[in-house]
Amino acid sequence: MGKRVVIIGGVVAGPKVAAKLRRLDPEATITIVEKGKFLSYSGCGLIYYIGGKIKNYQELMETPEGEMQDPEFFEKFTQVKVYNQTEATRINREKKEIETRSLVTGETRILPYDYLVLATGARIFQPNIKAFELQQPDLELGYMDLAHVYTMHGVEDAEAIRWTIKEKLAKKAVIVGGGSIGLEMAECLVENGLEVTLVEMLPEILPTFLDEDIGLLIRRYCQTRGINIQVGETIKYIEGEGGLVKRVITDQGSYEADIVIMATGFKSNSELAQKAGLIIGKSGGIQVDTSLRTSDPNIFAAGDCIEVENLVFGEKVYMPMGSLASKQGRVVALNICGENEIFRGALSSMILKFFEYTIARSGLTVKQAKDLGYEVEYSLVPSFDKARYYPGAQQVIIKMIAEKGTKRLLGAQIIGKGDVSMSIYALAPVLHYGGRLEDLSNLDLPYSPPFSSVIDSVCVAANVLRNKLEGKLVGISPQEVERKRKQGDNFVFLDVRTPKEYLDLRIPGSTLSPLTVLSQKLDDIPKDKEIIIFSEVGHRGYEASLILKNAGFQDVKVMDGGITCWPYEQGRGEG
Amino acid sequence: MGKRVVIIGGVVAGPKVAAKLRRLDPEATITIVEKGKFLSYSGCGLIYYIGGKIKNYQELMETPEGEMQDPEFFEKFTQVKVYNQTEATRINREKKEIETRSLVTGETRILPYDYLVLATGARIFQPNIKAFELQQPDLELGYMDLAHVYTMHGVEDAEAIRWTIKEKLAKKAVIVGGGSIGLEMAECLVENGLEVTLVEMLPEILPTFLDEDIGLLIRRYCQTRGINIQVGETIKYIEGEGGLVKRVITDQGSYEADIVIMATGFKSNSELAQKAGLIIGKSGGIQVDTSLRTSDPNIFAAGDCIEVENLVFGEKVYMPMGSLASKQGRVVALNICGENEIFRGALSSMILKFFEYTIARSGLTVKQAKDLGYEVEYSLVPSFDKARYYPGAQQVIIKMIAEKGTKRLLGAQIIGKGDVSMSIYALAPVLHYGGRLEDLSNLDLPYSPPFSSVIDSVCVAANVLRNKLEGKLVGISPQEVERKRKQGDNFVFLDVRTPKEYLDLRIPGSTLSPLTVLSQKLDDIPKDKEIIIFSEVGHRGYEASLILKNAGFQDVKVMDGGITCWPYEQGRGEG
Repeated sequence: MGKRVVIIGGVVAGPKVAAKLRRLDPEATITIVEKGKFLSYSGCGLIYYIGGKIKNYQELMETPEGEMQDPEFFEKFTQVKVYNQTEATRINREKKEIETRSLVTGETRILPYDYLVLATGARIFQPNIKAFELQQPDLELGYMDLAHVYTMHGVEDAEAIRWTIKEKLAKKAVIVGGGSIGLEMAECLVENGLEVTLVEMLPEILPTFLDEDIGLLIRRYCQTRGINIQVGETIKYIEGEGGLVKRVITDQGSYEADIVIMATGFKSNSELAQKAGLIIGKSGGIQVDTSLRTSDPNIFAAGDCIEVENLVFGEKVYMPMGSLASKQGRVVALNICGENEIFRGALSSMILKFFEYTIARSGLTVKQAKDLGYEVEYSLVPSFDKARYYPGAQQVIIKMIAEKGTKRLLGAQIIGKGDVSMSIYALAPVLHYGGRLEDLSNLDLPYSPPFSSVIDSVCVAANVLRNKLEGKLVGISPQEVERKRKQGDNFVFLDVRTPKEYLDLRIPGSTLSPLTVLSQKLDDIPKDKEIIIFSEVGHRGYEASLILKNAGFQDVKVMDGGITCWPYEQGRGEG
Repeated sequence: MGKRVVIIGGVVAGPKVAAKLRRLDPEATITIVEKGKFLSYSGCGLIYYIGGKIKNYQELMETPEGEMQDPEFFEKFTQVKVYNQTEATRINREKKEIETRSLVTGETRILPYDYLVLATGARIFQPNIKAFELQQPDLELGYMDLAHVYTMHGVEDAEAIRWTIKEKLAKKAVIVGGGSIGLEMAECLVENGLEVTLVEMLPEILPTFLDEDIGLLIRRYCQTRGINIQVGETIKYIEGEGGLVKRVITDQGSYEADIVIMATGFKSNSELAQKAGLIIGKSGGIQVDTSLRTSDPNIFAAGDCIEVENLVFGEKVYMPMGSLASKQGRVVALNICGENEIFRGALSSMILKFFEYTIARSGLTVKQAKDLGYEVEYSLVPSFDKARYYPGAQQVIIKMIAEKGTKRLLGAQIIGKGDVSMSIYALAPVLHYGGRLEDLSNLDLPYSPPFSSVIDSVCVAANVLRNKLEGKLVGISPQEVERKRKQGDNFVFLDVRTPKEYLDLRIPGSTLSPLTVLSQKLDDIPKDKEIIIFSEVGHRGYEASLILKNAGFQDVKVMDGGITCWPYEQGRGEG
């Protein structure tokens, strides 16, 4: 008889372990225990089913050949026994067996194992918020007791939300949480005609992924899409009437809602492991080594229930991502079969479609890096995803972060209507290898006008960052400039664009002095004041700063990202 | 007085040196000598001007702010003196001066330098082909003497070709050369209504970039676009009548043509350097060190005139690419100013839009690697550029090459209608760092269904290649299978797709045995014969091979890339 492998969890990592294991070992006895009804589906794809881009959720569960991956499929074609709608209730590590209970019949079962795989996934973190029923004000409810309050996790949630939308039972939605799920949900609901308010407790959207300056740029874009985003606002309670959700009350306001989506982040399902005495990391995920073994050598873990090393700074973090789960499943199967496959860790890479925008990131943000004690510098560089003259070229904005001294790349955030995916795909491997900015300056990324600028935007962002680190360019963030404006600092705010650009759009309080005539106008600029220069994207600002420095000006700064990255008050110039 | 820098060449590398140098050193005296009329333009963008996607070639010469980069611009805004339409005729290294001659007035000039930069670029290699005038058969001409025979290089060529098309002076085009320029030209002419024949001397198109199997897949696609591609065919002579080109005669046929484009590859303009006694590499490019200094420490060189190290195998090659030229210009400027900037080399990265297709590559092909003495294995993996279920997902085909033993990535070729750019952008850095396949297996590329499969196609291609290298999968190329079929080898050719797929499209001589029933049909398959399995893309083929091996079959191979990469005879199945 072959080795007995029991896998708890049947969505992503679990089925991947089973499939790969079967390929490696035809003799193994493989069993999957899954709490839910459905197996092996793309959780990340459910949002497109809700929104209607995908007609049947079955498409998310099919093999490339169009076969539904239900228990029968697993048993018939891969000889994997599946108990779905079955909960694993206890791990007995001494006897090497687990106890399960059917959620349908209540039947219990003991499953012995040689190797156990925990792929128990994650669940939506449910904050402690009260709910009230207007018709019975004294009755304290859980908010999930109100109809049309949903979490967004799993097929059943998706079905319910889709049904609510399709039946036109909701016009006004409140989304609680401004992470990636919250934003995807916002797009989905807006495209289905709902009026959407998104409430994020932290000061900016996508707080675990982006720095606040980048988050703010996205939030400004949201306004153009008619989404009401409220940041720094805490939900106090939720009101229902007649069993239906009615209103969300925050510490700052009240929002009508006939549908509420809780997109409040993920939490590892690590309780079963914890009860069995396995080590749980500080992040809340199950601790594993690089072979994905838990603290018990016969128990592996993979997917959204574990913590992994962040390769940039070498510590364990919680990083629930479908792509990692899938890769980890493969690693576990290989190691169960005695191979020595290493899962070193990950980069917290993320990409998100958000209306016409793409939002991507990898590595550390400035804030995360600083919190970890790094001394950092960054560049903020708008550019185009194709040659500027090529039809359809669109803007992308890259924020690139490096460690001072070593000039090691620490992270990047990229947003824009242009092709962001290729830039982040180039940067993730550089982060993986611990690469430095100078590697990026001359990295041979292939070029042709339909695909990039002649020097790719990631190379340009690296060069700008090197200029800053080498003191050739002194930057100042739009946030810092705005703070100075608000507190009435006495500085020259110099716009070096053309008169035409100035007429189209200007920053109030700025003075126009086009780069092309700047050399002749130096006498008009006071030498003893702080000078802050900006242009459209920053390049001309840099050129202007060099002219001023050569002319003996001492305190010259260039505003990061130019007017393109200015998220505050703008006006139209006066002729 | 600042240092005197003379730059010969004003298209890409030269102006980049000048602009960066001016930023670094306001005191330097900078002079550009350019043979042509135009300066600082995107040569790679000219094709879009010819085809009409760009209305004015001036767009290719503008700064991001829309200013034409003509000599006046350079002089006024960057204090760079420009002599255009001026040829550098001699370098006097002892006296540190160059001689120039105006191509307009004949005036000569001596320009002294502290540093000289050679950015003399490349020209189209002109093969030794005869031309005949039908009306005067005894008169032997050069083919460029015939009207409407063009090379494709520089603004004047582009103007002439565009004019010929716009004036509808040509209906039938012959393009000589199947490299990237030849293919871009073919697309451009077909889209402008011309009938196009492309003749390539070597056995397959894009011979310096792709292996023949990949070239053949593209050539099959060309048929659907109505381009007549003739490979392995040598031009013998060109016929003209009344001064106009009329016909191209090859060793295998004759093609009517009222326009002929010579796209016969690039050749370094290294003669000036050679005459001055500078070392010219075996590749024909000027030899430089990693600071881009020539064999004379006061002379730098950059752009299409130099050779650079191929970072994968560490030898110098000729790699004329606009993006490299631009990067090199920056490096030269920094080093002239006493910094220590390193240009290590490049990867022969290339990307090309070709109708709906994108063609990209980096590193070495199988053929190049073998010629260099590497022992290699490769994978050929079709997949999708988005999650399979996401609307608009398109196919991409990755050929990934690694060294046996070390499993180091040596190169990749990627083609398809899908987003190829992000995949090649991920692989170029891995090549840059000398990465191995195992790095790719778990590389944290960001995932979301609109952007990739849950395990990105480059990770999948790496995993397939690892399976081959570890003996888990024995592959066989479609080319080898076709050879066996033609010579009548006795093997079982097993199609493990579904009956429906088989009815849609099949390979003649194959036997259907769907994967899902294969285990029950093992007795129908002879155990003593060679078995070659294929499926749609290869995945089911792999599964089937495992079933057969477990059942005791000895000689089981899986055809690389499945029927998707089968470029030979196909039929419709019989019911």
